[in-house]
Amino acid sequence: MKCLVVALGGNSIILPKEQGTLEQQMRHVHDTVENMRVLFNSKYKVVITHGNGPAVGDLLIQQESADRPRMPLYVLDAMTQAQIGYLLQLALQNQLGIHSTVVITRILVDKKDRAFKNPTKPIGPFYKSKVYPAMIKQLQGWRRVVPSPQPKGIIDIQLIRDVMNKYVVIACGGGGIPVIRKKGRLVGIDAVIDKDFASQLLATQLKADELIFITAVDNVYLNYGKKRQSKLSAMDIAEAEKYLSEGHFGVGSMKPKIEASIRFLESGGKKIIITSPKLLEKALKGKAGTVIK
Amino acid sequence: MKCLVVALGGNSIILPKEQGTLEQQMRHVHDTVENMRVLFNSKYKVVITHGNGPAVGDLLIQQESADRPRMPLYVLDAMTQAQIGYLLQLALQNQLGIHSTVVITRILVDKKDRAFKNPTKPIGPFYKSKVYPAMIKQLQGWRRVVPSPQPKGIIDIQLIRDVMNKYVVIACGGGGIPVIRKKGRLVGIDAVIDKDFASQLLATQLKADELIFITAVDNVYLNYGKKRQSKLSAMDIAEAEKYLSEGHFGVGSMKPKIEASIRFLESGGKKIIITSPKLLEKALKGKAGTVIK
Repeated sequence: MKCLVVALGGNSIILPKEQGTLEQQMRHVHDTVENMRVLFNSKYKVVITHGNGPAVGDLLIQQESADRPRMPLYVLDAMTQAQIGYLLQLALQNQLGIHSTVVITRILVDKKDRAFKNPTKPIGPFYKSKVYPAMIKQLQGWRRVVPSPQPKGIIDIQLIRDVMNKYVVIACGGGGIPVIRKKGRLVGIDAVIDKDFASQLLATQLKADELIFITAVDNVYLNYGKKRQSKLSAMDIAEAEKYLSEGHFGVGSMKPKIEASIRFLESGGKKIIITSPKLLEKALKGKAGTVIK
Repeated sequence: MKCLVVALGGNSIILPKEQGTLEQQMRHVHDTVENMRVLFNSKYKVVITHGNGPAVGDLLIQQESADRPRMPLYVLDAMTQAQIGYLLQLALQNQLGIHSTVVITRILVDKKDRAFKNPTKPIGPFYKSKVYPAMIKQLQGWRRVVPSPQPKGIIDIQLIRDVMNKYVVIACGGGGIPVIRKKGRLVGIDAVIDKDFASQLLATQLKADELIFITAVDNVYLNYGKKRQSKLSAMDIAEAEKYLSEGHFGVGSMKPKIEASIRFLESGGKKIIITSPKLLEKALKGKAGTVIK
């Protein structure tokens, strides 16, 4: 039985062009889960991870808008694990009859991670101009950014191992809840860990056979969005590193997936697939998507 | 080994007189967990539940205050399970070295429950006047109310059973996420289930030996808040029903605890303790609190 870690992009649940109402989120979760049907059979043991970028950004705005106590970003990360995990859980059960469990996952980061001085992780909606001090400009507009430190360890890994033999596990949601060690204690810290790196760490620690990134594009491209854009159906580590160094992959979108893929392979992983929900079935047969080996 | 279900009041994490900042919540969680130290030994297997009244009310206000998509109340219930569960989890680990797991718990309710036409569950802060259509007046002021249907079944009960042998489980947070069955599917419905009733159902389904309500008062009183107020150190079902019918117990506070206690005993449960965090140790020895047998 192959162990698969399947990482769902936060942007595949709340699309950049949409507001992200509950109805929209439920529709995308429905469609994604429908496309994942092919994963749930006797061949695979599946652990699902997901991003939280749009959702945690909205939640942060809401917390800032009312005269009620605000929870810090790391608590909001925890809250989005339940929010998105619950929607996935209902869809898995209602559409596929699959029993799943949401594991509230804490992930250790280094308080000296330079990400804390250089926020790069985009969250929440797109804006027409720079309305917050820390923002970056993406294709669709300006977006708020928060620190995104590297995941160093999954606090709840043993629990995930314990329950994955019986249930489909939804874990490391939103990249996990970032915590640091401080005098032997675990303490939350404000950040949003990249779910691609968290998913790689999980896949490596579980000794998963394959890591699958389900994202907005059908496969990896060279010269993405440019005239000379070309599909990549496969690459190895050396090619991936070369393309990375040539700057082919978007910061905060394809770049972390390629970097996470290299780490997964270098830590003993065998195969990565990057594709869209609708091409997942074909990609598993090697007929679509991008494979990294 | 005795199985204990320990229910923590939402008002013991966010006090009625406080705003409920993170620092205040963490301090109360710290103190409550410190008082719970006596529970974690070879004599007991512990499952913890908690309320979410103040927290889910604040979250609802925040969601309503910004021009971003609002999640329905049942998704907010899910979010508070992770919010409060995560704080409890960190405190258990940091103060007592206890590994715990938060089980995102869905609870079945009946869509025809008359609670949907008659909201009674107070959530969020206290107001000086009636500012929302559905409010009730409590001792400290007006408070928003939402439907609070009876819990009929715990969807995730098997998962709780599976993990409680190895971990301290935090489950049924905020009374659980209310769902109904609709043409064979599970669908969320806006409500806040009373955590006292949810805790009783959990205790009954787990065949727990004891159900412990940790609340703001040291024990149950007759004529609470009146001149003739008197402590109750013990009662049986018949006495509990008599006092209930005489109107001794506050709606939304002591009344559901007594009603839940009667149900627990009638379903085979042996003992209920109602007490405050600081008297828990004495109450376990029968030297404080109120025992219902």
